[in-house]
Amino acid sequence: MSKALIVQKFGGSSVANVERIQNVAKRVAGYHKRGYEQVVVVSALGDTTDELIELAHKINREPSEREMDMLLSTGEQISVALLAMALQKLGCPAISFTGLQVGILTDTSHTRARIIRINTDKIKEELKKGRVVIVAGFQGVTMNQDITTLGRGGSDLTAVALAKELKAVECEIYTDVEGIFTTDPRIEPKAKKLAQITYDEMLEMASLGAQVMQARSIEVAKKFDVPIHVRSSMSEIEGTMIIKEVKRMEDVLVNGVTLNKNEAKITICEVPDKPGVAARIFSTLSLAGVSVDMIVQNVSHTRKTDISFTVNKAEISKTLRMVKKVSAQIGTGEVLSDEDIARVSIVGVGMKSHPGVAAAMFGILAEHKINIEMISTSDISISCIIQKKFAETAVRALHEKFGLGK
Amino acid sequence: MSKALIVQKFGGSSVANVERIQNVAKRVAGYHKRGYEQVVVVSALGDTTDELIELAHKINREPSEREMDMLLSTGEQISVALLAMALQKLGCPAISFTGLQVGILTDTSHTRARIIRINTDKIKEELKKGRVVIVAGFQGVTMNQDITTLGRGGSDLTAVALAKELKAVECEIYTDVEGIFTTDPRIEPKAKKLAQITYDEMLEMASLGAQVMQARSIEVAKKFDVPIHVRSSMSEIEGTMIIKEVKRMEDVLVNGVTLNKNEAKITICEVPDKPGVAARIFSTLSLAGVSVDMIVQNVSHTRKTDISFTVNKAEISKTLRMVKKVSAQIGTGEVLSDEDIARVSIVGVGMKSHPGVAAAMFGILAEHKINIEMISTSDISISCIIQKKFAETAVRALHEKFGLGK
Repeated sequence: MSKALIVQKFGGSSVANVERIQNVAKRVAGYHKRGYEQVVVVSALGDTTDELIELAHKINREPSEREMDMLLSTGEQISVALLAMALQKLGCPAISFTGLQVGILTDTSHTRARIIRINTDKIKEELKKGRVVIVAGFQGVTMNQDITTLGRGGSDLTAVALAKELKAVECEIYTDVEGIFTTDPRIEPKAKKLAQITYDEMLEMASLGAQVMQARSIEVAKKFDVPIHVRSSMSEIEGTMIIKEVKRMEDVLVNGVTLNKNEAKITICEVPDKPGVAARIFSTLSLAGVSVDMIVQNVSHTRKTDISFTVNKAEISKTLRMVKKVSAQIGTGEVLSDEDIARVSIVGVGMKSHPGVAAAMFGILAEHKINIEMISTSDISISCIIQKKFAETAVRALHEKFGLGK
Repeated sequence: MSKALIVQKFGGSSVANVERIQNVAKRVAGYHKRGYEQVVVVSALGDTTDELIELAHKINREPSEREMDMLLSTGEQISVALLAMALQKLGCPAISFTGLQVGILTDTSHTRARIIRINTDKIKEELKKGRVVIVAGFQGVTMNQDITTLGRGGSDLTAVALAKELKAVECEIYTDVEGIFTTDPRIEPKAKKLAQITYDEMLEMASLGAQVMQARSIEVAKKFDVPIHVRSSMSEIEGTMIIKEVKRMEDVLVNGVTLNKNEAKITICEVPDKPGVAARIFSTLSLAGVSVDMIVQNVSHTRKTDISFTVNKAEISKTLRMVKKVSAQIGTGEVLSDEDIARVSIVGVGMKSHPGVAAAMFGILAEHKINIEMISTSDISISCIIQKKFAETAVRALHEKFGLGK
């Protein structure tokens, strides 16, 4: 009779200090007692990563990415060693590994490496000995034994990838919230925790601003059908299961309302309406590493059109500089920008087959006299850019009207 | 025409903060400009190692040694990455490696591992590319890819071992003193820096309390004839060369005076004078991990004798407990202890062939009315245990009388 294997991932806030590390150890040891085989993935303690980045920048504003990975990977190495010690203190056999030691092979894109494959021999060997295997999140190693990191939130990816390779029955993602909510409970106290959500819905939620899990790791979980359980490291309450298909009693149209206030809008007026112009604008931004989010271009009735798009606020000045340069070359009209915007989105697999949902959303916003500046839709989400001052009102109204608080 | 290869080791105080790391980088880059091939070994920043040990002890008073090594090795990994960044900032090509990456293979004695062999392929490859190769000191890896550490002062050993394997022309040990002095300049301002000293003399100096370099690394340097240059990271002044044989104009009898106030003396009175008794006492201590230093037992004229020995003060209570137990079993007299002692030693290869040196030393101490409680000699050193209050007087008198200030 083989034991059930689970992967458990604890983020930086769950191991921010000695007391919290001890709490995590208690929880992990509890599972061990109940007979689970466990692989535990840990992030760096609290703000360690940010502190190391700051230290590096004092020495070199543009440190080589290889050395940056060498530096940052120490954060998780400290966490895994300390957690192993805490488990051993509780009499629970445990052993820690770095990404290199465990064989998480990645490509050579330092600071944003992609996992190529994982050699699970070592893990399986240790599991057989009855040990909890603790693996440093966020890091891997190239063929050449250079240390790499997987980018922000990369520990989620480590956990999901290990769960996939080891055929775990579940991948628990421990965080400081109790699960995925219908909307941000700080904005709408009536927000409800969802028992289940699909990968697709979660992907929309993640990319639309619900910062619970890294989007890339949800994509991987979806691809390999890894069941994820998002839950709180502070309580025993069940969280939210992220799975392939949710069996619901009724066909719920909208599952969540998300809000993102970190974007800014740029509008290029009177763009010549001919092939290749949009490509020229956005390839320039792409080459400069600017990640563009929503893009809206309307049908033009003249030979000119307006193009609007949003970018992260942190990149607004860089983006404006580049856009103005390209605009001058192309010969467009004015370039406008607005940082006082917010994106409000509704998400739900049910809306695929219900064209009336969009109309309902626009109607609710109109009822509250909220002007819609941009609209963008996907199969399972609808996003509207509105003025920032209306953001919370919009979230609450949509949450109420789509019946999410019930 | 091949370039001269040197190994340069910087201790924790040399890289204690951003400014010092930048200073080290400047020095290293200067050598690179002058055409050297360089392997740089770095310790953990300032007190990092002690801080990590403290953190571990908050979680587990007796952490597993494997996990301790996992934890502590992050200290040097941070240093090497930061130094690489600092060098790159100066336009000096550099690359950092952990002990594992560079292939410093050790046995499995965690926290005090011994180097088995070093694979220098990777280093040579990087040197060929014109890069400064930065290696994390103090750490290695077992055959099984577990991280090990080499014990306190282990970075010296890393440097010496690399210098040996790479056939370096010199191994520079940067520290916060300007070299090896005839005695501690804080006690005797007339102390003079030695231009050269032999491995044997340095070994005596190191084990007798001159805390410049780890004794084990000097043994290795001696074994493989690695020229060591001990010098200050704060100045450009030449330090002290540690070599096989020192060519001196005249045969200097005494080269240095050392002082050690960290020992305590234990005397077991009226020990039955028969075979196996001393063995029983000291094997008990050895099994308990107590490191005994000087041992003195005099010829006995009765059937009883006194045995005196010294141990580190930190181990005095443990030692007394064990000794009293054994004494009771053997049936000896009283067990006495004294912590208010000091060991004063003179060191010099010249004294080998000059029996008069010991007499001269005793004479000088007698002149100052300093009673000698124990005497121990080696080929190239003579040590006396005296009362602690006379320690500085003794050092200054010996330094003066043996003409070391000239």
